[in-house]
Order: sequence, then structure tokens, then C-alpha cells
Amino acid sequence: MSDMDEPALRALIEAIRSGDTSADDAVDRLRRLPFAEVGEALVDHHRTLRQGMPEAVYGPGKTAQQCVRIVEELLAHGSGPVLLTRASDDQIRAVLAQHRDAEVSAGCVLWRKPTARTDRRVLVATAGTADTPVADEAAITLAAYGHDADRLHDIGVAGLHRLLAHVDQITGADAVIVVAGMEGALASVVGGLTACPVVAVPTSVGYGSGLDGVTALLAMHAACASGITVVGVDNGFGAASAVARMLRT
Amino acid sequence: MSDMDEPALRALIEAIRSGDTSADDAVDRLRRLPFAEVGEALVDHHRTLRQGMPEAVYGPGKTAQQCVRIVEELLAHGSGPVLLTRASDDQIRAVLAQHRDAEVSAGCVLWRKPTARTDRRVLVATAGTADTPVADEAAITLAAYGHDADRLHDIGVAGLHRLLAHVDQITGADAVIVVAGMEGALASVVGGLTACPVVAVPTSVGYGSGLDGVTALLAMHAACASGITVVGVDNGFGAASAVARMLRT
Amino acid sequence: MSDMDEPALRALIEAIRSGDTSADDAVDRLRRLPFAEVGEALVDHHRTLRQGMPEAVYGPGKTAQQCVRIVEELLAHGSGPVLLTRASDDQIRAVLAQHRDAEVSAGCVLWRKPTARTDRRVLVATAGTADTPVADEAAITLAAYGHDADRLHDIGVAGLHRLLAHVDQITGADAVIVVAGMEGALASVVGGLTACPVVAVPTSVGYGSGLDGVTALLAMHAACASGITVVGVDNGFGAASAVARMLRT
Amino acid sequence: MSDMDEPALRALIEAIRSGDTSADDAVDRLRRLPFAEVGEALVDHHRTLRQGMPEAVYGPGKTAQQCVRIVEELLAHGSGPVLLTRASDDQIRAVLAQHRDAEVSAGCVLWRKPTARTDRRVLVATAGTADTPVADEAAITLAAYGHDADRLHDIGVAGLHRLLAHVDQITGADAVIVVAGMEGALASVVGGLTACPVVAVPTSVGYGSGLDGVTALLAMHAACASGITVVGVDNGFGAASAVARMLRT
Amino acid sequence: MSDMDEPALRALIEAIRSGDTSADDAVDRLRRLPFAEVGEALVDHHRTLRQGMPEAVYGPGKTAQQCVRIVEELLAHGSGPVLLTRASDDQIRAVLAQHRDAEVSAGCVLWRKPTARTDRRVLVATAGTADTPVADEAAITLAAYGHDADRLHDIGVAGLHRLLAHVDQITGADAVIVVAGMEGALASVVGGLTACPVVAVPTSVGYGSGLDGVTALLAMHAACASGITVVGVDNGFGAASAVARMLRT
Amino acid sequence: MSDMDEPALRALIEAIRSGDTSADDAVDRLRRLPFAEVGEALVDHHRTLRQGMPEAVYGPGKTAQQCVRIVEELLAHGSGPVLLTRASDDQIRAVLAQHRDAEVSAGCVLWRKPTARTDRRVLVATAGTADTPVADEAAITLAAYGHDADRLHDIGVAGLHRLLAHVDQITGADAVIVVAGMEGALASVVGGLTACPVVAVPTSVGYGSGLDGVTALLAMHAACASGITVVGVDNGFGAASAVARMLRT
Amino acid sequence: MSDMDEPALRALIEAIRSGDTSADDAVDRLRRLPFAEVGEALVDHHRTLRQGMPEAVYGPGKTAQQCVRIVEELLAHGSGPVLLTRASDDQIRAVLAQHRDAEVSAGCVLWRKPTARTDRRVLVATAGTADTPVADEAAITLAAYGHDADRLHDIGVAGLHRLLAHVDQITGADAVIVVAGMEGALASVVGGLTACPVVAVPTSVGYGSGLDGVTALLAMHAACASGITVVGVDNGFGAASAVARMLRT
Amino acid sequence: MSDMDEPALRALIEAIRSGDTSADDAVDRLRRLPFAEVGEALVDHHRTLRQGMPEAVYGPGKTAQQCVRIVEELLAHGSGPVLLTRASDDQIRAVLAQHRDAEVSAGCVLWRKPTARTDRRVLVATAGTADTPVADEAAITLAAYGHDADRLHDIGVAGLHRLLAHVDQITGADAVIVVAGMEGALASVVGGLTACPVVAVPTSVGYGSGLDGVTALLAMHAACASGITVVGVDNGFGAASAVARMLRT
Repeated sequence: MSDMDEPALRALIEAIRSGDTSADDAVDRLRRLPFAEVGEALVDHHRTLRQGMPEAVYGPGKTAQQCVRIVEELLAHGSGPVLLTRASDDQIRAVLAQHRDAEVSAGCVLWRKPTARTDRRVLVATAGTADTPVADEAAITLAAYGHDADRLHDIGVAGLHRLLAHVDQITGADAVIVVAGMEGALASVVGGLTACPVVAVPTSVGYGSGLDGVTALLAMHAACASGITVVGVDNGFGAASAVARMLRT
Repeated sequence: MSDMDEPALRALIEAIRSGDTSADDAVDRLRRLPFAEVGEALVDHHRTLRQGMPEAVYGPGKTAQQCVRIVEELLAHGSGPVLLTRASDDQIRAVLAQHRDAEVSAGCVLWRKPTARTDRRVLVATAGTADTPVADEAAITLAAYGHDADRLHDIGVAGLHRLLAHVDQITGADAVIVVAGMEGALASVVGGLTACPVVAVPTSVGYGSGLDGVTALLAMHAACASGITVVGVDNGFGAASAVARMLRT
Repeated sequence: MSDMDEPALRALIEAIRSGDTSADDAVDRLRRLPFAEVGEALVDHHRTLRQGMPEAVYGPGKTAQQCVRIVEELLAHGSGPVLLTRASDDQIRAVLAQHRDAEVSAGCVLWRKPTARTDRRVLVATAGTADTPVADEAAITLAAYGHDADRLHDIGVAGLHRLLAHVDQITGADAVIVVAGMEGALASVVGGLTACPVVAVPTSVGYGSGLDGVTALLAMHAACASGITVVGVDNGFGAASAVARMLRT
Repeated sequence: MSDMDEPALRALIEAIRSGDTSADDAVDRLRRLPFAEVGEALVDHHRTLRQGMPEAVYGPGKTAQQCVRIVEELLAHGSGPVLLTRASDDQIRAVLAQHRDAEVSAGCVLWRKPTARTDRRVLVATAGTADTPVADEAAITLAAYGHDADRLHDIGVAGLHRLLAHVDQITGADAVIVVAGMEGALASVVGGLTACPVVAVPTSVGYGSGLDGVTALLAMHAACASGITVVGVDNGFGAASAVARMLRT
Repeated sequence: MSDMDEPALRALIEAIRSGDTSADDAVDRLRRLPFAEVGEALVDHHRTLRQGMPEAVYGPGKTAQQCVRIVEELLAHGSGPVLLTRASDDQIRAVLAQHRDAEVSAGCVLWRKPTARTDRRVLVATAGTADTPVADEAAITLAAYGHDADRLHDIGVAGLHRLLAHVDQITGADAVIVVAGMEGALASVVGGLTACPVVAVPTSVGYGSGLDGVTALLAMHAACASGITVVGVDNGFGAASAVARMLRT
Repeated sequence: MSDMDEPALRALIEAIRSGDTSADDAVDRLRRLPFAEVGEALVDHHRTLRQGMPEAVYGPGKTAQQCVRIVEELLAHGSGPVLLTRASDDQIRAVLAQHRDAEVSAGCVLWRKPTARTDRRVLVATAGTADTPVADEAAITLAAYGHDADRLHDIGVAGLHRLLAHVDQITGADAVIVVAGMEGALASVVGGLTACPVVAVPTSVGYGSGLDGVTALLAMHAACASGITVVGVDNGFGAASAVARMLRT
Repeated sequence: MSDMDEPALRALIEAIRSGDTSADDAVDRLRRLPFAEVGEALVDHHRTLRQGMPEAVYGPGKTAQQCVRIVEELLAHGSGPVLLTRASDDQIRAVLAQHRDAEVSAGCVLWRKPTARTDRRVLVATAGTADTPVADEAAITLAAYGHDADRLHDIGVAGLHRLLAHVDQITGADAVIVVAGMEGALASVVGGLTACPVVAVPTSVGYGSGLDGVTALLAMHAACASGITVVGVDNGFGAASAVARMLRT
Repeated sequence: MSDMDEPALRALIEAIRSGDTSADDAVDRLRRLPFAEVGEALVDHHRTLRQGMPEAVYGPGKTAQQCVRIVEELLAHGSGPVLLTRASDDQIRAVLAQHRDAEVSAGCVLWRKPTARTDRRVLVATAGTADTPVADEAAITLAAYGHDADRLHDIGVAGLHRLLAHVDQITGADAVIVVAGMEGALASVVGGLTACPVVAVPTSVGYGSGLDGVTALLAMHAACASGITVVGVDNGFGAASAVARMLRT
């Protein structure tokens, strides 16, 4: 409220009341109010919106010192979980030096992990061993939202027996995150086995023509299981955030 | 059950009972059972899974006559909704000639639309007029799942005032499908305004460097609102199916 | 102002004045005002912003009937120029049947062309004959903004003599739009000859590896004349709008 | 043998024999022989190589009349099967008018189909109905090689039950051609179920980001089942030819 | 067999025999069996399928310690060859420290190389010196399958004389792997000289516009020799595995 | 010479001579001369440069009437050959109606074909039948330069025997244009057989992953025969023009 | 003036005056003048054009020593600002060692920053923290032109409240540079809020499918706010130069 | 001549002469000759073809030791120039340690540079300083062919005055190599100024959307100056080799 903060508003009300301001003037001044207020109003709305949501800091492109300062601020001004993602070793060392009480996994650091856990079953499944770091990022992000993820490793479609041995876990989940680089269609297979939401994360892992994950991304979009959605390459954080939105419903 | 259908199974049980088959032989024969049964078992599982789900037929690459036959079969062998998508005028004319009682929208035909409607509020928003057909495909698919979609048209981010005039509708929704060709970031904006699931549908609409929707697709993935998921280019059907999964939760 | 339109605002002011509403209540109600007003406020802002700007309708993806209706509305509710772009022959025929008094060029229709012309010299230059339609789109859009464009044809860099014969026209312009398909670097050459703003429009014209204009677009971005900016492939309308912004400055 | 055909060779031998040609001259002339003979020698080699192989004519880019002439020649100068592929309706009509005794399928025409059939089991499997024409092209090409293909339709990985119901057919095959557009990983799944050669054919079918089959092509290459090979987009003919090579072994 | 392992199955058989379980109950319980068994059944099937096949471990994305552990397990639980591929120097040092008795080539480590060799002639040909590591990967993989590969180096099509000097080796092979980066069409040339299976491996080697091998990959697919198949960029392992499938036939 | 044409120049010289203009003024006025003259000077230079070169008109993007008018002008104002390229049937009909005395081939029309022919041997070779139109465009362009091209058809590298049967024609040429769509490396092979200039023309012909010729274009650049140069996709005209430059040397 | 420099010109004038040179000869010699003068004339023109413009040196591809030498020359031969861009640490160290009196920011070094500042308000806005270096490059370039940029950080469209809180700064600017990697459409949003020129700079920052900034670049071109122009990826220098052109108008 | 070397040939001739071999046998044996001879014949042909051509070794993918050995061999078995290209510092150090008498430039090492120089004027022009290494590679390659290249630096089209100041050098050349990264169209401009062969080398240099030179490559192909040819990205060696072919003509 740069133009008209609360004292100003109260003064205007007083002026209306006292008759110092005419009705026309009051209408005029109040009509200008919304525009000035737009930002502030949305700030409030945004604050409500984010209640219970973890604060996330994206590491790349920030200095270790910037990370320390931002984390500090978030820890100081709120009481919810704080998550640093895609952090370099330097960044992790720097932030832990200041704020030790945290969980670290796959380049992510989580402070104030919620102790109350939800009872929703979220499954994070990977096609191959090399997809693990992305799945870890998804899991620690889910933890920040209060979800304990189940994990399935190495259930790529080329070895269908490993996948089918876990069919119960898949059909029993409330949401599944499928992390797969070399064979995008694992998401399709899983989507055909369950009616719950399935979020696919293409990874930049893989032999040959993977094009840093774009092949997997396009393939996941081209795959035909209806109702599968996709997030960006290696974006475990985004997939977990999406599932958190879905399970809030 | 090609190898061992029910009569065969009963005969085996009788043979066990009568002692005609030794325990070892019985174990042996029953051990071979699962493999033969795999398909059948999954068929049953699949049947359960799809209970209440509409049957969908994808038009392209099928002759009008094939469409008629498949629709006929689906109508005959089930009682749920049947949806033909991406149908050509010829296909639509042919199927309606046989089965008139249907709704038609945006190249889709829906028979046996569920009369019971859910109370979940799904919003389908488009950035521009030209995105309408994809949004219509999403809406008729949602209808097949029993969801009546709210609609918002032409709220592209270049005219923020139109978008913000409808902020209540956005924040009040249980799920939002954002259909946008020329400016993929509408999904980001909407995602920042609501905590509910947001599914983005890139469209192949647009000036210049749209690359048939791939630009919008990549841009939607590159956009930074956390927790937005994306479906394939022009895939209104997929987005609606994804929302149906989410709202089942 | 869905929640609180002007009469309501005046009633509230009266209630403040009369003491029927306490100061606290008034603050509370007025604090809620901005959010509801957001859209409306920006609509007003947007209206001011667009004063003197032509209203533009993008043809593709609209039925001829939709075009007629939108044009009708824009002509009825404002008094400024109205421009239909990328219209098909059908759309043009339909809108002209209703509103004859218009200029037609390169798939664009312009009603209420401003009669007052600016004295700024805008040059629209093309590399080859086949770039003409895009240049025409730029020219009619400029006309809608009150600028009469000078035109230079066929000054591709492979025939430097044609370009240099017109060096005076280039150096004398207040802004130059360069429309070039096959050889994106015409923009660089022109940018090196003048200190005024140069806007490059890649076109989808060309032999071989043009990739529908994406090659020209990327090449124009890769070219090294400092201070050249680029719009989308074939986007004559966008280039003209950009120049209109610049010359307002 | 432009320079030195058989009579010339015999004449040279006679000249050697009679002493009319010295040993040095003979060596010299004969040393020049290979180079002139290169083409002819390889023609002979090529002829042997192709024994039993069908002659194939690729339709696109040829006039109907060119097709007629080439087919005529091939039928006249050999006795094996002749296959016209990717033929337009016009081309098919023209060639059949001259040479009626043929099988027609999926834009291919096959004359002199081998009556002796091999006992190798080749399976051609498709992921979806729309992949059928490419599978048909593979099947008629296999027929030209004397292989009767088994067919499996619509066993996309999103409906694993349909695929698994046919596991016996897959594991019983000597070679499998997997034709799949929207979900390239069907090849991986099949490759994991059988130890025989699997050839994947990406198709240009599909929703959204298929990029005319390039997505499927890249995805098939990125998929991880070891030992799967891939042919070009929609290249049913190529896949069948590859299988023919393999089964000759 | 989580739900119903062998003792349970025997108990059920006993209950059937003793009459403690009715026929209906038995049918019912046995019908539930397949689904639980799915995984196990395919594990058995998979085990058979892999008999005689080397176990392969893909190095990238695994720690040296993970490699050591996985190799250890595979050596302990089977008796066939074990192959580690794409291993870093660290990984190789770590695994060799534990299990010395191995062959090392091109970042691959092979334990228990089969001593019985097949009599099939597999030729691995490269276009240039820089393609050698990929060819080496193919050769050591072939060795794991019991095939001793012949090798041809540097037979790129720009020097046809080197290629043709070895025509006998090419025409005498049972299968040819062509490894080529800069000139994808070597596969076409070879395919035209022999009727045996030809597997092309594009490599990421090359001047200029190679796009990390994608150009070679696309070019190999675009090349016209019928019946050539392709594996992913630099995928020597995949090519060798494909040939192993073909020669099993 | 807009500012200062010849009479003006003579008047200035007179004024210098008469002393009406001071030396300083004369220097000043003459210093301004070059800039105004730049265009004209280059026009003269360009005119000389083009002596003996055919005038070429590119058809696409021009109306039939524009073609007629441009051809007319070129025929009227010069005496050399005039070539219309990439013309549509309509354009060809229109121009021939006015100026009958022409040769027509592959969408090109050539008036005033030089009767004096050079003795340079130019070879135009194609990989497949479908490359013929591009080769025809090259041949008629060469004709406009006075070169009679030799032709070789269908010498794709997959059938090396056809290529080698014509090795004499290749090694005997002064320049070779290689037109190839599906297998870009034909240019490499030819380049390895001859020391003369080889210009490669990728074509948009081909199965599968040709990407409208971009694959062939990139492949030709990636191929390794040293000293091969490439022109744009389907650009027979450009290749012929390049050869004309080379043979002028 | 290689052929005819000023003394020569004066000598010619004298010769004309004295009658030593006939009028014809003079015309002839002067007609040859322009061509020789072309370069020189444009050099003069270029010099004028660049008056007041900073001299810029692009660091990459130059040795530190080359940078030192070029900077030295520019500082010695002119009096305006000199800007080194994209300099490595080594290059910066080397040039500062010689010429200390400079400002350093984001890999750029600016000598002789203009002390007179313009009163035009240029706003440089970034979508995220990681876009800061590119914005810094734009700001120091603007400083070289005499513009002090306002800065807005972290106003990405996913948090509309932050953006709208600064609406006054946006609407009050004379030109806006929008620097955005992950969400190209920030430029659209800003373009919809202001009528002044908006220049978009895509950055190579971002999760997943950013393709080193090409996605953002294409997305910015695909976005629909009319009149937005775009510069190359990460090209803060280019954007600032473009704004300098526009504000000169 | 593996099957039949010269002594064998002489023996056969003797046998023919003596009558020990019948005419039929002789024909038969000689008919088999060509095929065996193919390779050898082409080796001879290749040897002739390469007479006077430098031997080139491509560094990347070879160990320093391999380079030493290959260079050694080439120096030992021939007497012409030997050129190592794209060599790393290690490779250069290793080869120079053995064979000191060489010129080194831009990662290339040239032994036995021809002392006889041609009188052909070859111009190597660069658009920017950063293109210098590629131009250097072209120049040292030309030196290996006996051509001393003229050089023009930094004549990018954005500063036309620098280019035009050297118009005489351009029009006086027998062939021009244009090396340009950021602005591919320099080749077009040069091509429009001269009638001699122009070979364009795109470089991987550049701001923003250069895509490692592919943009420049595609742009050079899209540019319209007729008769310009292009080599691969950064391929200075290839351009020089192409010019060497042209000047041999």
C-alpha cells in the first residue's frame, strides 16, 4: 500500500465522516485504491495460498552466500519447512555450517521437516539405477509436504517381471511418480495398471539419442496412456509439488 | 485361460480329490497356471480398474466403418459412456447415422453421458480464441467422467486485466486445465494463483516460431511455477483424463 | 466491480458519514475492495493504455461469423481504427459484406484508418519479392497507427549495389523494419548503416534449409549488429506494433 | 566390359598364344582389366546376392507410367517376386491395368508371391490400430520373401493385459517386428520377453509431440532393452527386409 | 509368491483332497493365484530366457562401490559371463581390485569369458580411427556371447579402395556391425555388398554438424539399403547384443 | 547519381575551370560525391560482373503476371539467357504464352539458351530416381551457362556396382554435381574417386527420418571426403551456379 | 582514398582549372572516384553514426593480450566510453592492470562512463535470481550510453503479486528490458501493462527442457503481446544497445 | 593382388602361350581376376589421384602416440607435404619431438610445405576476430597445397565500410573462403561482389542462438547468393581442400 496505507485509509474515513471530504472526492480516491493495492492484495492471497507449503530455494545461479542469507530469512520469518534444491557441495556446506539441523539428499537440504505425516501412499518408481538422484529429489520434496514416499527401483519395462512383481504396490498407491530416462513409456505401463494420478519425470540419463532428456520428455508426451501428465527433465521437485497439489484435493 | 480354463480347473480339482492326480503333479500343473493366466488376470484387473471410466476411441487412422463397428461393440458390451475423439466429419456422420443419441463437440462424440454429475469444480481456461477446440475436447471428456467444466476464454497473460477479473473462479476451482498455444506461461500464472492441481495443454496454435506446439510444450516445461504438469500438444482429452484421475483421489 | 460497484461504494461512504458503519468495519470492507477490484482497475488501466491504439483481431482459428461479430463489436464500442489480420478470403468476404468502408492488404482489413498522419519516417525494407506479403502486413498495421511507411523492395545483401543505392533512405529513417527470409543478415547490414531502431522480421520464405523461417529467426539472433531486435517468423504485425511503441517514446 | 568384353579377351588370349602379343604387353593390358571390369564384376556379384530376393520398386517420385515400365522390365527379366511399395492410387491402378495377377495391401503391390513358404515364425505386432498400414507393408514384404507373418494388434504398453495375453505368441516367434508410434517402448517390453531378434519400426502416428515419428524413433533408440534394432520411420518394408536377412542366417 | 507359496499350495491341495475345501472354494482361491504369481512366473521365464546370456552392468550413474557390489553378486549367484560397460577409470580400478581375473577393453570389463567359441563369423567394421572405442565395446560384448569378431578398420566410403580390398571379408561374414560417425552411409554400402544382417552403430565422432551423433543416426535411417537396422549412438554393446540375438536364430 | 549526374559533374568541372568554384568548395563537393555514387558504382561493377551470366527469376511467391513482366523486362533489356526457376504450372503457362521460344524442364524455363557450348565436362549424378527433378534443375541451369551436362542416374551407394560401372565418367569429369536424398554419402564416395570439384545437393526425398532434406544436408556436411562442398536442400540451381563459378576460373 | 587522396584531388582540380586536364578526362577520372572511395566514405559515415556511442569489444575468442591491445587503441584514438563484454577473469585482470579506472560488472569492464546522464527511465526486470548476470550486462551497457537503469528482481509470472506490486515502476518506464529464462512470457505480461518499448532477453537459465535458452527464445517469439521484440539468448548487451537506439529517437 | 599377383599373371600368360592352359580356362581365370583386383586397382587409382596432394591426419580420437606413428609412416613412405589437423597440445608436442621441421598454426602441423607456390590468389576472409583459428586452419591447409592465402579480418556485414574498403581484394581473388560464425550472410555479400568461387565456412562462434554453428550453417544455406557452396562447421581444412580442387581445374 504505497499510496494509501492503513493510517491513510483511516484518515480518509475520518475525513468522510467529518465531511471534510466530499462523497465525490471519496469515490475518486477510493477508485484509485484498487490499483495501488493490487500487489499487496495478491501478496496476502499468496501468503494464504502458501500456508503449510514448504518454502523452496533453487540453488543454481546463486552464490553460497546468497543461499545462506535466503535460507536464514525463510527460517526466521516463517515456521514451516524450508527446502534448498539443486545445491552444489559448496552451497550445502555453507548452509549447513549455519543451520545444521537438516536432512540432506540428492543435492537438496530440508530444514524443519514436518513431523506430522499424511496417510496418503505416494510411490516413487524408477526405471533404472541412474534415475535415483531425481527420485531422491522427489522424495525429499514430498517429505517437506509431509508425505513419506514408498520407493520402487529398477522396474524398467525391458524386465517386465520386476515391474509385475510389484503390481500390488502400484495399484495400492494414491499417486505415482515415475522417474525414467531411457524408456519414457514406463509411465504408460504404470498408468495402465492404476487409476490414480501418475506424474512422469523424464531424466537426462541414457545411451545414445537421449538429447539430454528431451527424447524422454517428448516420448512421455507421445505415449498413449490417457491421463498421464509430465513435468520437466530431471524435475523431481516439480513432480513432488504436483503430487502435493493433487493430494490436497 | 487358454491352457486351463474353469472346467479344466474343476476337473483338476476333482482329480486331486479323487487321488487320480498326485500332489506333486498337481503342484506342477498349478505352477504353470500363473503364466498362462497372466493375461486373463490382468484383463480382470483392467476391467475393475476401468469401472465407471468412459470407453474412448481415437478416430485418426481408422476408417469410418471401423469407428462404427468399435463404437457399436463398446455400446453393446458395456453400459458406461463411450467417447469418440478426433473424429473427421465422415466418421462423425457414419457413427451418428447408427447411434444418434449423442453429444457432438470439437470432433468428439459422446454417447451415454453420465447424468449424475460430481460437485467438483473443474475450470478449463484458454489463452486465446483459437485454443477453443482443444478446450472443447477437454470439456466433453470431462463430461464423460461426470464433471461439468467451468470455462474461461481468452485470458492470455498479455491482457492481465482479463485474467485477474476472474481470479475468484481460478482460486475457487478444484482443478484447472490451462489450454494455451502462443504463450505457454499462462499455466505458470494460474499455478501461482491457486494451490489446486493445474494441468497445462500446449496447443499448436500460433504465429511464427510455434513449431506446431513444441515450443509451447517446451516452454510450459521450462516455466517455473512448481507443481504444474503438462500433457501433449493439443491433448485436451489427456488433460481431462488426468484431472479425472486426480479428482478420484 | 462485481462485488462493490459505484452505487455500493457511495452507499458505504454515506454509511461512514452517517456513522452507520464504524471506522473498523469501513477499513475492513475497503481492505477487501482491492482484490475484487483488481480486474476492473486493470481494465481501466488497459483502456487508457490502449488509447489511440488500433484494435486488432487475429483471424486464424476463428469462423468468418466470429470475425464479423468481433469486428462489429469493436466498431460499435470504440471510435479508433480496427484491424483484422491473417484473414482468409472467406473471412474477408464476410466482414466486408457487413462493413465495406475498409482498406484490404495482404490478408488484413483496416477500418477507420487514422487520417492524421505522423511525420515519423518508417521504412519497411524487404530482401526479396517473396517477402512482400509480410511487409504489406507491417505497412497496413503501421497505417493503423498513423504512420505512412516508405518501402524498399528486393535489397538483399547478395546484390549490395541495390542496397547501397538507397543508403540515404535508410540513414534518413526514424525506424526500419527489415523483412527477410532467405538471408537474415540484411538486418545486420542495415543496422550497421543507421543508428535508429531496426526491427527484423524473419520470413518463412526460402530455398532449402529454411525450416519454415526458424533458420532466419535464429540467424537474425546470431547476427552481430548490436541493437537489432527481432520479432516472430512472418510477424509483420508485431514488427509494426513494436515500431509504434518506439515512436511513441 | 566396355573396354574389353569376352571376344576381346579371347582375342587377347589368342594373341598371347600366337606370340603376336608379348608377355609384357599382355601383363600391361591385363593389369588395366580389373578397373574396367569393376562394375561388371560387382554386377555379377550383386546378381548372385539378390538370388531369391524380391525386386522392389519404391513408388514416390515416380510417374505412374514410370512404375508401369519398371515393373514390366522386372517381370520380364526375372522370375522372382516383384514388389511395388508406397504406391499412390494412380500408380496402383496403372500397374494393375497391365499386370493384374497381384496382391495389393497398404499401398504395396506384389506380383509372383512365392508359393513355397518358410517355416519360420515371424510376428508383426502393433501398438495401436493406426499403426496397421505400416504393419501391412511389413507383412506383404515378408510374403515376398516367403514368410507368412503372424499378426498381433493393439498391444500397446498402456494396456499390459492385452500384451501379456499373447505372451506365448511372442516367446514362440523366431523374429518380431514391433510397429509403434505413440509409445516407442513396446519394443523394449517385447525385447525383454523374448531372446529372438526384435526390429522396431517407429511410426508417424500419434497425438501431440510425435514430430512425425522422430520422437518415436529417438525413443526407441533411447530405450534400454539390449539387442533391439530400429529401422526408419514408417519403414515396414525395411523391417521386413532386415528380418529376411536375419532368417537367412 | 507372497500370498501363496509352495507349502501353501500343497496345503490347499491337501485340503482339496481331504474335502476340507469345497470345489467352489478351491476354484475361487486358485483363480486369485495368477495375479499374485505374475511376477514370480515371469522371473522364472526371464531366468530361462537369459540362460547363456552374459549379465551386463551399465556403469554410468553408479558409484565405484555400487559397481563392486553388483558385480560381486552377479559373480556369486551365476556361473555365466559378467560384463561391466561404460565404466570410468575409478570403477574399473575398484572392480579389478576385487575380481582380477578379467579382460578390459574400451571401458568394459569382462569376467568369465566363455571359452567355447562359436563358428559364426561376425565382422566389426569402422569408418575411421576415432570409431575404434565403440567397435571395441561391440567386440568385447560379442566375446561375452562367445563370438570372436573379425575387425576391419578405417574403411570409410571416401576411400572406396580400402573398402573394396576387403570385399571378401564382408561377403563372407554371417553378420556385420558397421560403426561409423562421420559418414553414416558406410552401412548402406556394406548392406549392398552382402545379404547377411547388417547392424549400424552411429557414433558421436565427427567434424561440424554431427550433433553428437544424431546426424549419423538420422542419416543411417535415411540411407536406402533395404534391411539395414540401427542401434543408438555409440551403442556398441547394443549392436553386439542384437547380433547375438540374430545368430541364436 | 541522384545528387550529381553527369551534366552536374560537367557543370562543376566548368565552374572549377572558370574559377566560379573555389578549390576548397570543389574538394568539399567532390568529397560528398562518393557516397551518393556508391550505389551507381556498384551497379556498374555488378553489370560487368554479370556479363555472360544468365538472368535468373525465382518463381515462388510471385504471381504469374509478375513473372511475365519480369521475364519481359529481362528479355528486353539484355541479350543473354533468361532463366525462370521453381515455376508453377500457371506461371509456366503464362510466360510461355508471351515468350514461346524457350526450353522447359523441371519447373524451369530457359530463354536464349547459349548456342556456343563449353568443352568442360560437367557430370550430374543422382542417387535415386526421385532425385531426378533436382538434377534436371541443375542441368538446365548449366545449359544457361553454356555447359552440356552428362547425366548418371540411380548410382546410390547401396548398389556399388552401378556406381563403379561408371567410374570412368566420374574420373573424367571437370566437375561433378551429386544429387542425393536418402544417402548423403554418395558425395563422399564420388569425392574419393576424383580430384575435381564435387558439389553435393541434398534433396528432400526419402523414407522416414529425412526431415525434409535437413538430415541429408547435415549428413553431407558430416561426411568425411575432404574438399566436398554443399548447397541447400533441393538447390539444383545453386549447385549449377557454383560449378559455373568454378569453371570460369 | 587509396587511389586518389586529398592532395591528388586538389591536384586534379588544379589540372582542371589550368586546363591541363580536359573536361572529358576529368569526368572519366571522377567517375572512377566513387568506387575507390566507397570504403572511405562509409568509414566517415560510420564514424558520424557512432558519435556518442560506446566502443564495444567482445571478449570470447580473444587472448587477454589481444583485449589489452584493442582496449588501448580504443582509449587512445577516441574520447568516448569503451566497454569490454563477456570477458574472462584473465582478460579482466589483464586489462585492469593496464587501465585501472573502470567499472566492472558481470564480466564487463567499462572505461570512461559518461558522467552526463539522460533523464529517460529504463527498467531492467528479471524473472529470477539466476537471470541477474544478464541483467547486469544490460545495465552496464546502458550506463555506457548514459542511461541509469532501474532494476526489478525476481518478478516471475508464477508469483504475480511480486510483479503487480511494482506495476507503477513498469508503467512509468520509457523502455523495459525483460530478462527471463525459465518463463519467457514475462515479456508478454509486461508488454500488456505498458505501451512503451519492451525488449525481451531469453536466458540460458533453467530446469529441464530449456535447451540452453532456445526454448525461452522461441517461447518469447511465440508469445502474443503485440509489439514485443526479442534479442539473442543471454544478450544483455544487445538489448541495452537496442534500447539506446530507441531512446535516441 | 591377393589371388593373382604379377608373377602369377606372367605364369598364366606363359601357360596360355605354351598351350598348357586352354582358352576357356584362361577366360575363366581372367574373369575372376577383376573382383579380386578391385581393391588393388582402386588403390592404384587412388594413389594417382592423390599425387601432389598433401597427406592429412585428423587428430581427435587418436592418442599422441598414434599420431606420431602415422605421421612417421607418411613421412617415410612419401615425399609430399604431411598435415596433422585439430591436434591437441599433447599431440603437437609429441609429433614435434620426433619431427621438428614443421610449421604449426591453429592446432595444425605441416611438414614439407611445398616451396613452389602457385600464382592463384586465394582470399580467406573472416567476419570477426573469433573466427581467426578456423581461418588459420584454412590457410595452413592451403599452404600444404602450395597456395599462399591473402587474409582479410573482421569484415562482418554489420560494418559494411570495412568490407567495402577491401572490395578490390575481393574482386581480384581467384577463390574466396568466407569464415563467419555470427552472421552467415557475409558469404552472400561476398558472392554478390565477385564471380569467382566462394566457399563458406560456418563457425561455432557466437552469442545466443548459434547452436554450435548449426544456425550459421543453415543460414549460409538459406542465403540467396547463387553459386555459393558451404562446408561443415569450423571446417577450415575442408574449405581449403575444396578450393584446391577448384583451382586444379
